Amino acid sequence: MEFNFTEHQHVRYNPLKGEWILVSPHRLKRPWSGQVEAAHEDEIPPFDPKNPLCPGVNRPNGETNPDYVSTFVFDNDFPAMLPDVPEADAATNQTNEELFKFEPAMGTCRVMCFHPRSDLTIPLMSIEEIKAIIHEWIKQGTELGVKYDWVQIFENKGAIMGCSNPHPHCQIWASSFMPNEPRIKDSYQREYYETHGRPLLLDYVNAEMKKQERIVVQNSHWLVVVPWWATWPFETLLVPLRHVIRMCDLTSEEIHSLAEIMKRLTIKYDNLFRTSFPYSMGWHGAPTGRKALVDNQHWQLHAMYYPPLLRSSTVKKFMVGYEMLGQAQRDLTAEQAAQKLFSQPDVHYKAEQD
Amino acid sequence: MEFNFTEHQHVRYNPLKGEWILVSPHRLKRPWSGQVEAAHEDEIPPFDPKNPLCPGVNRPNGETNPDYVSTFVFDNDFPAMLPDVPEADAATNQTNEELFKFEPAMGTCRVMCFHPRSDLTIPLMSIEEIKAIIHEWIKQGTELGVKYDWVQIFENKGAIMGCSNPHPHCQIWASSFMPNEPRIKDSYQREYYETHGRPLLLDYVNAEMKKQERIVVQNSHWLVVVPWWATWPFETLLVPLRHVIRMCDLTSEEIHSLAEIMKRLTIKYDNLFRTSFPYSMGWHGAPTGRKALVDNQHWQLHAMYYPPLLRSSTVKKFMVGYEMLGQAQRDLTAEQAAQKLFSQPDVHYKAEQD
Ligand SMILES: O=P(O)(O)O[C@H]1O[C@H](CO)[C@@H](O)[C@H](O)[C@H]1O
Ligand SMILES: O=P(O)(O)O[C@H]1O[C@H](CO)[C@@H](O)[C@H](O)[C@H]1O
Repeated sequence: MEFNFTEHQHVRYNPLKGEWILVSPHRLKRPWSGQVEAAHEDEIPPFDPKNPLCPGVNRPNGETNPDYVSTFVFDNDFPAMLPDVPEADAATNQTNEELFKFEPAMGTCRVMCFHPRSDLTIPLMSIEEIKAIIHEWIKQGTELGVKYDWVQIFENKGAIMGCSNPHPHCQIWASSFMPNEPRIKDSYQREYYETHGRPLLLDYVNAEMKKQERIVVQNSHWLVVVPWWATWPFETLLVPLRHVIRMCDLTSEEIHSLAEIMKRLTIKYDNLFRTSFPYSMGWHGAPTGRKALVDNQHWQLHAMYYPPLLRSSTVKKFMVGYEMLGQAQRDLTAEQAAQKLFSQPDVHYKAEQD
Repeated sequence: MEFNFTEHQHVRYNPLKGEWILVSPHRLKRPWSGQVEAAHEDEIPPFDPKNPLCPGVNRPNGETNPDYVSTFVFDNDFPAMLPDVPEADAATNQTNEELFKFEPAMGTCRVMCFHPRSDLTIPLMSIEEIKAIIHEWIKQGTELGVKYDWVQIFENKGAIMGCSNPHPHCQIWASSFMPNEPRIKDSYQREYYETHGRPLLLDYVNAEMKKQERIVVQNSHWLVVVPWWATWPFETLLVPLRHVIRMCDLTSEEIHSLAEIMKRLTIKYDNLFRTSFPYSMGWHGAPTGRKALVDNQHWQLHAMYYPPLLRSSTVKKFMVGYEMLGQAQRDLTAEQAAQKLFSQPDVHYKAEQD
């Protein structure tokens, strides 16, 4: 018998993080008898006077939202980070032993509504509406990036991803420290750049375009692949074809093209299980603040989509015991996932029904 | 204002993994309006002829379980790893480029039933019954450790943790490779040992016994703390007080004492939200197979409990957007969590009701 990626277990390497993933394609045959998620296809009204993210509504802290018509950004009412925290005094610092290390952390957490209507998700928006989101991301990143070393833009979509509000929105958490994930990716990208003189992710994008094995969507400025090292069943990586280190460096054609590819990708996601596809997604690019002062040419801007669903709109992949204590494990291969997504129609299943 | 660990956000360092955790105690005031989990307090019958983990029952693959009276171990019917996989041939190996690296992986996956009765969990078992589990863990670890470099024992408990069968059981996945988590911990423990001449976790245990700030339970041979760097709200670390590198090195007193502390810990867990507390737990100790041939004195055996619940039996902590793309974040501090667990009664709430 010959070794075959779609039949035989193996481990794959993630060069961005120095981690391995266990791929067990033969396990696809496993029956499922575990927990199923509620099918959340409730009709969401375009406007709900009780929803604190809607235009003109009172938020729990007493503030009233403006009658916004595009995006709308405000400070999180229950932020995980505040801009001002007292300095640790000498006595507290004494406890800063090797096995009990801590650091003060400063930050700002914002909520960004994508659109005034609660019932519109990105795949259902117009290109112009998606462009407004990207422009706001750039504005926020630039503004917060003056003060903070890292600005994390992320979207938790769907109740299954802990999202407590169906109104289309994302969050922006800016911090005085560089969080683990980008810190690790910074060092692997730097090492690759020092060895090869080219950004890791740009070499990767070019290799994927040649191989044509994991491509989901592609246009004149962007590529979406299920990366070789994908962890989540239908994880994707969205990367510009040109060397771009931060979102603020995108040209207006690239922004237009990004809006277009985000729409196409999320339509495919929704069509896969005929559901508003849950995921966490977000952006990584070169760090900001004090960290912008060093050379960051090893960075390549990219977005990641981490969707939890595995088999249907109600059966997700559980990252539990082995994954928490050992390492990530997946059943279908990245190539199989890419093929399934690639072959989805470019028209949204809801538009079809109209 | 003075800096205060229970009021002001900060980041804490995990010396076992070189990672940081964001602690935001002020965020405890956040109201919850997101997804709640089903309360799974269904009566589980002691025996169910349809449950493939019960004694004497036919499994889907046609085999019949023996009428076991203590623990029972069998090969997983849908294993993520198989012992034999064809070698990658030259042509396949050519694709082993720097950005598309892979390795063959061999392994064995077993299921281990803890007890013949489906309705008994560890906190409800006798010390002798728990000792039988520990003895079986040792036997399995020793047997599989001859051939495999890593033997991962883990338990996914509760539907919320992807556990598809309520019968008390764990899994054992042995692999020809060392998974990410233990690989990283191996290198941090080794580095500490080389610098200090003592195992990291033994120094940590001794420091925690002096500080008395994060202790949940303790007996003559074991300590349970919510570690300084805990990620999950009620995460705990279970460590022997003596330097022990693998489970097979435990004395019979230490095994007895371990059974006793596992029972006390899981009773406290169940009492916290008056529910059969879900978690993933598992063991890490010195590697085995070929990896047993090198010096492993830097290792200290330990178990980790990773429970998902945050506020009640139905509200869990979501490790999503920021956690996936940035770094782990928690609301209540490790000290607050330890205090809550410590103050739980040592009698199970179900025993109380009798
Ligand atoms: O083996 P099980 O219980 O069917 O499966 C469960 O545990 C495994 C090991 O953590 C995970 O890979 C699966 O996602 C989870 O559903
Ligand atoms: O900020 P939210 O939407 O209330 O909260 C959600 O996203 C956060 C950032 O990923 C997580 O820390 C929370 O666990 C999750 O429930």
